[in-house]
Amino acid sequence: MGEIMLRLSTPGNSRFIQSDCFDVNYGGGEANVAVSLQNYGNEAYFVSKVPENEIGQAAINSLRRFGVHTEYMVRGGSRLGIYYLETGSSLRPSKVIYDRAHSSISEAKLEDFDFEAIFRDADWFHWSGITPALSDNAAECVRRACIAAKKAGVVISCDLNYRKKLWTPEKAQSVMRPLMQYVDVCIGNEEDAEMCLGYHPDADINAGQTDAEGYKQVFINGVKEWGFKYIVSTLRESYNASINGWKALIYDGKEFYVSRHYDLKPIVDRVGGGDSFSAGLIHGMANGKPMEWSLEFAVAASALKHTIPGDFNMVSVSEVESLMNGSGNGRVER
Amino acid sequence: MGEIMLRLSTPGNSRFIQSDCFDVNYGGGEANVAVSLQNYGNEAYFVSKVPENEIGQAAINSLRRFGVHTEYMVRGGSRLGIYYLETGSSLRPSKVIYDRAHSSISEAKLEDFDFEAIFRDADWFHWSGITPALSDNAAECVRRACIAAKKAGVVISCDLNYRKKLWTPEKAQSVMRPLMQYVDVCIGNEEDAEMCLGYHPDADINAGQTDAEGYKQVFINGVKEWGFKYIVSTLRESYNASINGWKALIYDGKEFYVSRHYDLKPIVDRVGGGDSFSAGLIHGMANGKPMEWSLEFAVAASALKHTIPGDFNMVSVSEVESLMNGSGNGRVER
Amino acid sequence: MGEIMLRLSTPGNSRFIQSDCFDVNYGGGEANVAVSLQNYGNEAYFVSKVPENEIGQAAINSLRRFGVHTEYMVRGGSRLGIYYLETGSSLRPSKVIYDRAHSSISEAKLEDFDFEAIFRDADWFHWSGITPALSDNAAECVRRACIAAKKAGVVISCDLNYRKKLWTPEKAQSVMRPLMQYVDVCIGNEEDAEMCLGYHPDADINAGQTDAEGYKQVFINGVKEWGFKYIVSTLRESYNASINGWKALIYDGKEFYVSRHYDLKPIVDRVGGGDSFSAGLIHGMANGKPMEWSLEFAVAASALKHTIPGDFNMVSVSEVESLMNGSGNGRVER
Amino acid sequence: MGEIMLRLSTPGNSRFIQSDCFDVNYGGGEANVAVSLQNYGNEAYFVSKVPENEIGQAAINSLRRFGVHTEYMVRGGSRLGIYYLETGSSLRPSKVIYDRAHSSISEAKLEDFDFEAIFRDADWFHWSGITPALSDNAAECVRRACIAAKKAGVVISCDLNYRKKLWTPEKAQSVMRPLMQYVDVCIGNEEDAEMCLGYHPDADINAGQTDAEGYKQVFINGVKEWGFKYIVSTLRESYNASINGWKALIYDGKEFYVSRHYDLKPIVDRVGGGDSFSAGLIHGMANGKPMEWSLEFAVAASALKHTIPGDFNMVSVSEVESLMNGSGNGRVER
Amino acid sequence: MGEIMLRLSTPGNSRFIQSDCFDVNYGGGEANVAVSLQNYGNEAYFVSKVPENEIGQAAINSLRRFGVHTEYMVRGGSRLGIYYLETGSSLRPSKVIYDRAHSSISEAKLEDFDFEAIFRDADWFHWSGITPALSDNAAECVRRACIAAKKAGVVISCDLNYRKKLWTPEKAQSVMRPLMQYVDVCIGNEEDAEMCLGYHPDADINAGQTDAEGYKQVFINGVKEWGFKYIVSTLRESYNASINGWKALIYDGKEFYVSRHYDLKPIVDRVGGGDSFSAGLIHGMANGKPMEWSLEFAVAASALKHTIPGDFNMVSVSEVESLMNGSGNGRVER
Amino acid sequence: MGEIMLRLSTPGNSRFIQSDCFDVNYGGGEANVAVSLQNYGNEAYFVSKVPENEIGQAAINSLRRFGVHTEYMVRGGSRLGIYYLETGSSLRPSKVIYDRAHSSISEAKLEDFDFEAIFRDADWFHWSGITPALSDNAAECVRRACIAAKKAGVVISCDLNYRKKLWTPEKAQSVMRPLMQYVDVCIGNEEDAEMCLGYHPDADINAGQTDAEGYKQVFINGVKEWGFKYIVSTLRESYNASINGWKALIYDGKEFYVSRHYDLKPIVDRVGGGDSFSAGLIHGMANGKPMEWSLEFAVAASALKHTIPGDFNMVSVSEVESLMNGSGNGRVER
Repeated sequence: MGEIMLRLSTPGNSRFIQSDCFDVNYGGGEANVAVSLQNYGNEAYFVSKVPENEIGQAAINSLRRFGVHTEYMVRGGSRLGIYYLETGSSLRPSKVIYDRAHSSISEAKLEDFDFEAIFRDADWFHWSGITPALSDNAAECVRRACIAAKKAGVVISCDLNYRKKLWTPEKAQSVMRPLMQYVDVCIGNEEDAEMCLGYHPDADINAGQTDAEGYKQVFINGVKEWGFKYIVSTLRESYNASINGWKALIYDGKEFYVSRHYDLKPIVDRVGGGDSFSAGLIHGMANGKPMEWSLEFAVAASALKHTIPGDFNMVSVSEVESLMNGSGNGRVER
Repeated sequence: MGEIMLRLSTPGNSRFIQSDCFDVNYGGGEANVAVSLQNYGNEAYFVSKVPENEIGQAAINSLRRFGVHTEYMVRGGSRLGIYYLETGSSLRPSKVIYDRAHSSISEAKLEDFDFEAIFRDADWFHWSGITPALSDNAAECVRRACIAAKKAGVVISCDLNYRKKLWTPEKAQSVMRPLMQYVDVCIGNEEDAEMCLGYHPDADINAGQTDAEGYKQVFINGVKEWGFKYIVSTLRESYNASINGWKALIYDGKEFYVSRHYDLKPIVDRVGGGDSFSAGLIHGMANGKPMEWSLEFAVAASALKHTIPGDFNMVSVSEVESLMNGSGNGRVER
Repeated sequence: MGEIMLRLSTPGNSRFIQSDCFDVNYGGGEANVAVSLQNYGNEAYFVSKVPENEIGQAAINSLRRFGVHTEYMVRGGSRLGIYYLETGSSLRPSKVIYDRAHSSISEAKLEDFDFEAIFRDADWFHWSGITPALSDNAAECVRRACIAAKKAGVVISCDLNYRKKLWTPEKAQSVMRPLMQYVDVCIGNEEDAEMCLGYHPDADINAGQTDAEGYKQVFINGVKEWGFKYIVSTLRESYNASINGWKALIYDGKEFYVSRHYDLKPIVDRVGGGDSFSAGLIHGMANGKPMEWSLEFAVAASALKHTIPGDFNMVSVSEVESLMNGSGNGRVER
Repeated sequence: MGEIMLRLSTPGNSRFIQSDCFDVNYGGGEANVAVSLQNYGNEAYFVSKVPENEIGQAAINSLRRFGVHTEYMVRGGSRLGIYYLETGSSLRPSKVIYDRAHSSISEAKLEDFDFEAIFRDADWFHWSGITPALSDNAAECVRRACIAAKKAGVVISCDLNYRKKLWTPEKAQSVMRPLMQYVDVCIGNEEDAEMCLGYHPDADINAGQTDAEGYKQVFINGVKEWGFKYIVSTLRESYNASINGWKALIYDGKEFYVSRHYDLKPIVDRVGGGDSFSAGLIHGMANGKPMEWSLEFAVAASALKHTIPGDFNMVSVSEVESLMNGSGNGRVER
Repeated sequence: MGEIMLRLSTPGNSRFIQSDCFDVNYGGGEANVAVSLQNYGNEAYFVSKVPENEIGQAAINSLRRFGVHTEYMVRGGSRLGIYYLETGSSLRPSKVIYDRAHSSISEAKLEDFDFEAIFRDADWFHWSGITPALSDNAAECVRRACIAAKKAGVVISCDLNYRKKLWTPEKAQSVMRPLMQYVDVCIGNEEDAEMCLGYHPDADINAGQTDAEGYKQVFINGVKEWGFKYIVSTLRESYNASINGWKALIYDGKEFYVSRHYDLKPIVDRVGGGDSFSAGLIHGMANGKPMEWSLEFAVAASALKHTIPGDFNMVSVSEVESLMNGSGNGRVER
Repeated sequence: MGEIMLRLSTPGNSRFIQSDCFDVNYGGGEANVAVSLQNYGNEAYFVSKVPENEIGQAAINSLRRFGVHTEYMVRGGSRLGIYYLETGSSLRPSKVIYDRAHSSISEAKLEDFDFEAIFRDADWFHWSGITPALSDNAAECVRRACIAAKKAGVVISCDLNYRKKLWTPEKAQSVMRPLMQYVDVCIGNEEDAEMCLGYHPDADINAGQTDAEGYKQVFINGVKEWGFKYIVSTLRESYNASINGWKALIYDGKEFYVSRHYDLKPIVDRVGGGDSFSAGLIHGMANGKPMEWSLEFAVAASALKHTIPGDFNMVSVSEVESLMNGSGNGRVER
């Protein structure tokens, strides 16, 4: 459940003010997760509301194209949210301009969704902190969805995904903290934990360095306070906009496990990197794999996402496993 | 004064749901007029409000590129309005999806504009019926602008430009009729006159046929009721989305004059066709030409517009005059 | 049931030997019908076989994108068929180069398809003469499908669709004539009837003129010989590659009905024009409309198809009805 | 022999001032003729001079790509000539901006070419009035080439091809008239005859009407004065920039022959239309065909050229013959 | 004051001989500086001469688009200079082919410019060594401009910018050395100093290594000989065409200051890198900032330029300051 | 002699399933070698068979464009082979899908080629292990070509070029080993030697590390067993799909020589890298250069190939020599 947006991105590395065409993609945190899960052979349903025009239809088509089920999509409301994206390079960061206020999903009402039906045969419910940030309406929808999911015995995962252009830390914490009681698997990087939950990792993020050690206390506290079954974080080392290091950390209340480390060098498109990680993790866990395997799958999947333009991670299970088990040396497959 | 929007159009004749890039242009009724006037060697100022981000800046740059003065542009508000455009062909009409609610200009306040300064050295003020249709705020801004312009001795022209996706005929008439008292030159096609002013031309529009005769009584009434110095209408014969006939009619309270007729065959881009007509007319009149010359210039200019992609009419005075005086036989200039 | 191919077309009007990129679409007679039917709100299933690689997957995705059900698609075999397309203009005809030999569907075996399951809840089965032309295997699959469909009480329609690059008239007649006993609705233009069934319309096709009268005797004979419930033909007047006239004729054994006539001027992409006609007809008939309404819907739908790039007809019911009931004058919808 | 230029054209129908990319082609009157001849199976040699850089190399490669022999191309000088092209539509004519001064060929010297070697095994020498218009140097090269060709018993054809941006009628006549004594086949439209030779056809060109009758006296005079074996003209009826009529007239000193008439509707790219006509004529005559066949081949070939983007006419003999002998009804070849 | 050219660059990393379109930009040393200064909120005027056609107009529009004042642009002369650009990668250097001889500015005359008017309210005059290299005319124009600027009390900066394809070291020194007396701020890298002024830095440039130490004596001599207020150089470490190091050195006659060092990894477009540095420096100095701040701003601004396609540096003051003060770690701004 | 294929590659780094256009190139091992050799000033002939349609013609044109002689190309058969290419980045390898079965060359017959004529004035014959892998027919053609070449005193080089998607190691060895007796210069990397000849280098390839030492015994054995005059291998260190190290090793039966090492950072297109190496080596040897020079030329040439999109290596001798002799520091050439 979440928002799917029209993504308008400048071609190559051109800036907004020099572009006379925009590449069109559709995406959003939860939609990206749904596409990944479907690509891995799971049956994924995306739940949202889009306007009753061709732009809304194109968003639905972008999901159907990859097999995501769209029976629970509601049509109506005034517009599809937009985000403009300019892809940075080396010393220039990528830039996002949000134009998502008044979107159909942000103005959706509780009556739009029949959560009982939605969760009837479901195994897993994933949502991110972006959805409740959209509006009070949306936050209430998420809360009710969580209650319905819990009642139906569905596992719940949440990617905290703090967006400073959508809300303040105070507002975020007032909404997110009460929702944590429903969450089984909590995913969030350093900034998310601080802004949404009020925790401070010791890692020095802006220096582009991340040390798994700094997260451990945060994780222990999270499990203690809300009873998460798992708490997970990616650990991104930002050398510059084109070159990053990438690994992840998971904690199940007993053991910590740090994944293999990957050099992302160069990065093609890092938007959706976190979502592809969440999807990889869910794929592993929902299919009964151990947390170590799930984490390695998630990290490898999201490392591959950084090489693919667009929000969606278009990789197969065999491609992810090949990276997990191999050297990533990039020899041509022919 | 008016709105400038981001225009996102599908390339060639592709449909919204099959496009994975959008061509980016900026335009809007009054902005289009300003660019034309500047192209003809007049000094044009565009007055509006755009958001303080790169999308707003790109809109300003699109005007500056053609020399339009942007000193009175205000920055702020939440977003730049968007219109999506799909260009039709033969039996399939072009389609516009508006996503312009909550734009910076529609939420602009009276304080944003210093009309006294704006009109101090101005000769002509042009606005269209789209601007008051945006919001009550915008309508009030237009009213005040008219008052200030009148006070400064500035000629006022209005293109009625009815848009059924923005307001109802009732609302339109309640706003537009009171504004007519300020108007010296009233421009409007058959539908506009009916929807904005409550007049019915006798022409049968949907049959794709237009007969200048049917307009004459409407024109006489208009001049009588509001004292327009001139009332003008284009007469479009729509054979299909690619082939139109084009001419115009003017009345100065005494004489009617019907322009030469042009075959638009094929049409490249008809959006902005009416604006290029208004600009041609203003160019003639503001430079002291007789109404016959002005009308012929306006019709030829707008006939050329139909051959140019984008909202703006990028033609020179000499190109328009060459068509006015020549045969339009399209021999290569080399 | 049929073949879906990779369509590689040169951009704009460029020729094969001057192109350094190809536009990628996926399409084929029956796939095109399925997409149209799904667009009109019916539940369409496409049955075929594609190779187990990304090109095959992309073909499936192109169908899923528009909601077509792909559960009965089989994966395997050696390759996806290709057709190269160069779009002509005025005096230069469009050109198709087939590279479809050895495609997965042409080498499919009977065991690949469980026709009993496929037709269990089906209402309508549509196939075209292209499929049996692919190979003897494919022809046998079609025959078995017809038998299974008949047994399940499913209505069968066939678009004769003769392709001279695939087989000779002799071969075509030896395969197609025995299949006609299963057909309820027979669709075919002048050339098809002659090549596939051995009938000669009196119309002079190469002169670019078609007269409905010339078809009547052929239709009467068809109904008499095979008991078709309906026999239908489009009537294309080819002025040149860019300008055509378009109408159709239907006969139900009692009455003839000739549809409204449309000018296709200019044509954007005529590939898939016949398929969009078949889909429109099936939509009407399968939803219980009279043959006159069905034919008018089919002709209007296919007239619109000529304005849309690609094989698929991406129009909605309301757009088709708007053309059926309106004037096609192409005014911008805004 | 002649100039090959870099052609920079705006995509689609966009104007120079709105384009941020240019399509790159290479072409020029005589180069276009050489490519056509090679396409028809003749062995064509192009003789010119291009700068010793990648732009010059690309021009050579564009010829080699179609098999034209480039052994006599000289490298050196300062630059490759450029022409900027903006393709018009309906009422807006196409526009050419020349930037060809100081090109390598215009500054070529007599020593650059060994005409004796060039014409040793040649059958035909074609040049156009553009080459002597480039510079006095170039004019002298043409004169010497004519003398050498005559000495080698080679047939000489000349396309008068007057370009008002290159020289005045006075200059043109002072150069061209003395060269006419070498010419066996003289090709020129109405304007060329007047500007280069001082003859006035009676046809009213600007009215977009051309009547073969008006040319007859000009042709008779031409043959009388210079002893042309054949004098030929295309007859273009310019309805607008997108729609033309097209036919041609030939005279062998005894008989006049008027070709079939073609509607060019719509035109894709008319640059190179005259050159494709010359090449078709030469193909017929050099292969011993009668003047009627040669003229029909030339007119059909150049009618097809109007459907092909770029300067070069990329059609085969069988495609031209198919149009000559058929109806041009534009049915898809599949 | 300087030349603005049409830049024709191959898309991506393709070579000249494989490109069938060119990206169109306009740029040139001084024009690039003007755009940067305007972007930073200064009022910049660009002075040059362009031909009176659409290509010249497009060059002017490219400046107006970013707000640069073009009132002093002169129209006339024969052509706009062109440079062809092929962007290299790793071991293949970028390649420039100049086609700028006979450009309007290189043939401009003294009478074209009213330097007294131009400098009346000016604060700063910037020129580069490219302009006097164009022609003796242009060199004389620069000399007169310097005299007029000095008389008007305007600060003068000069970027030495040696171009070996335009002149020899001997010619360069004979022209440039006499002009140095007018210069307040002298900007030049290692090669420039040697070629234009006859100084030899000790740095080993071709080894791709640059050491600030090697420049110090050159700087001291420069200040001594010509009384520069500041002498500045960028220090580029070329690892390969895609990866460079970047920093700068300034000397005010008393102190040396070396800026922070940046890794440019990867480079998107390095053309205009030096100009963006000059503009950053002028921005700081003209706004009264200390030389240290000015140098850091200049280096950060030009480091960002390397990430932006085209000649112009489209960055804002806040973006430059964010890099100056931050880590350049490239996190997405959202 | 070999196969030339249509290469359909996704633009940029997009995946097959997200592409709606394919870049069109033509290439193949031996064709790539021929183009390189022609670029270096040698006269290269390419011998193959392509279908008699426009796709086959375009393949021939792609060779003619670069001057390769195509007199011995045979036309006929059913299709041009295709390979689909998706360019990887960092951790995602490039992917090739072959669709080359039933191509004209794979079904060519001995009678198609007159090897005696082909080798009459030839100096060198190059083939690769891909050709005999296509079919038994093709393998027999290669064998006969080798015999004819030997008879004509022509030097023979072979690039082993093992392709696991075309044949198994067993089949490869059964075909390739008997052909080795004709080979003078054997080229192959680590995998080729193992798969085609049954030799095992000691280098650990998958670890992305290659050590020249590990090859020496393989080379000594090769020379001993088949009497190669030279045996050569490139040594690629694959860090990831975007970053490689590159050098090569040669052995003439007496001495080993290891070339300079290059960092390929980043790689633009590595397809054709091996072919460009072979061509560089042949260029050196066929022009009488020592093996050290030839190897350095080959390595530098192929290092440059990695910066050029498409299969062909479009570099000149002077560009290669400039890299061989210089530092590759990538300064702009202007």
